[in-house]
Amino acid sequence: MRQFVFEDITSEEVARRTGVYTPLTDSVRDLIDATIRTEVDPDTIRAAGELIEQATALLRAQQSDGPHGVRYTADGTGMPWGNPAIGIRNAIAPPMVVTRDGDRRVADVVLGAAYEGPPGLVHGGICALLLDHILGEAASAMTGTLTLRYVRATPLGAVHLEAEVVASEGRKRTVRGSLSDAEGITVTAEGIFIVPQKKGPR
Amino acid sequence: MRQFVFEDITSEEVARRTGVYTPLTDSVRDLIDATIRTEVDPDTIRAAGELIEQATALLRAQQSDGPHGVRYTADGTGMPWGNPAIGIRNAIAPPMVVTRDGDRRVADVVLGAAYEGPPGLVHGGICALLLDHILGEAASAMTGTLTLRYVRATPLGAVHLEAEVVASEGRKRTVRGSLSDAEGITVTAEGIFIVPQKKGPR
Repeated sequence: MRQFVFEDITSEEVARRTGVYTPLTDSVRDLIDATIRTEVDPDTIRAAGELIEQATALLRAQQSDGPHGVRYTADGTGMPWGNPAIGIRNAIAPPMVVTRDGDRRVADVVLGAAYEGPPGLVHGGICALLLDHILGEAASAMTGTLTLRYVRATPLGAVHLEAEVVASEGRKRTVRGSLSDAEGITVTAEGIFIVPQKKGPR
Repeated sequence: MRQFVFEDITSEEVARRTGVYTPLTDSVRDLIDATIRTEVDPDTIRAAGELIEQATALLRAQQSDGPHGVRYTADGTGMPWGNPAIGIRNAIAPPMVVTRDGDRRVADVVLGAAYEGPPGLVHGGICALLLDHILGEAASAMTGTLTLRYVRATPLGAVHLEAEVVASEGRKRTVRGSLSDAEGITVTAEGIFIVPQKKGPR
């Protein structure tokens, strides 16, 4: 198993790398959407596929031999850049940008075609992915149990997420959260999260 | 909201389209992995980004004006091709291929760098996404509540999923399932799923 990795880089270097990787990942997100929605003919699809393979070959000329892992700088800045909920290098991630609002963690995300389950609606499992992540971040811990209640369907588009630790005992954190659209809550979540014995933020 | 869409096409046409879209989406999945793991210099990253933008422009020359939706043929063959768990046109999906084994639904999936949460481990929310989907498919219904128990961490690599309806009352289906690696179960799931009043498989 890969471990948490320390990288001795400055905050300027973190910002520089963010500026290099963000546009690349955004272009891959745009491509994912286009791949779902395209109606061009097979020859054009093959031509697009060839361009994609050329891009991949350029990127693979030098690469890490495993997954990204979670890297940290000397001042404790986390770089969970491969994460499928928040990673700035992972095109699967919307990405969700989690901020603090007092004791709560909050995030606003726009979910497009790539997150669709039933027609026009967010896949229930994508709601679960984002809620699991923001609850885990509120707890700085790993999921023990997670219970989700789907109050009503979530339309594709802008959603808001919140999470807050409501109880703490030893290494156990009880966390509650919700996902909502402009009309109100669509999914609630409650979980028990466990702080790892050798602690590292997830 | 988009509705379930009927397309009057033959099973041969479904197979032809599958043959056109599958290699395209696979190339995008490979690109997602390369985007996470690349260590090439900024100029090469920009060159790759330009190729990706060219590919996207080719694909967007003709496209649907919204998400993919879930389409059906005359014989009831579903084409949930934009789905983020199973969609053959959605590069976010591994994709999970769900099959029947008696009353159970089962799937075997290999999860790489794009699904990493803690270092070397599958993101808990990705476990939730795949379990929500296979339980929903077992029930042919939408999620009401879902409870996940993370027995232990799931290493990246090959995983196996199972789900089965254990009780049925009116439109409510109680479904149980699990995710496991070669050593045994890592996450269990139990959910109440609700069959839509105007029924359509998810």
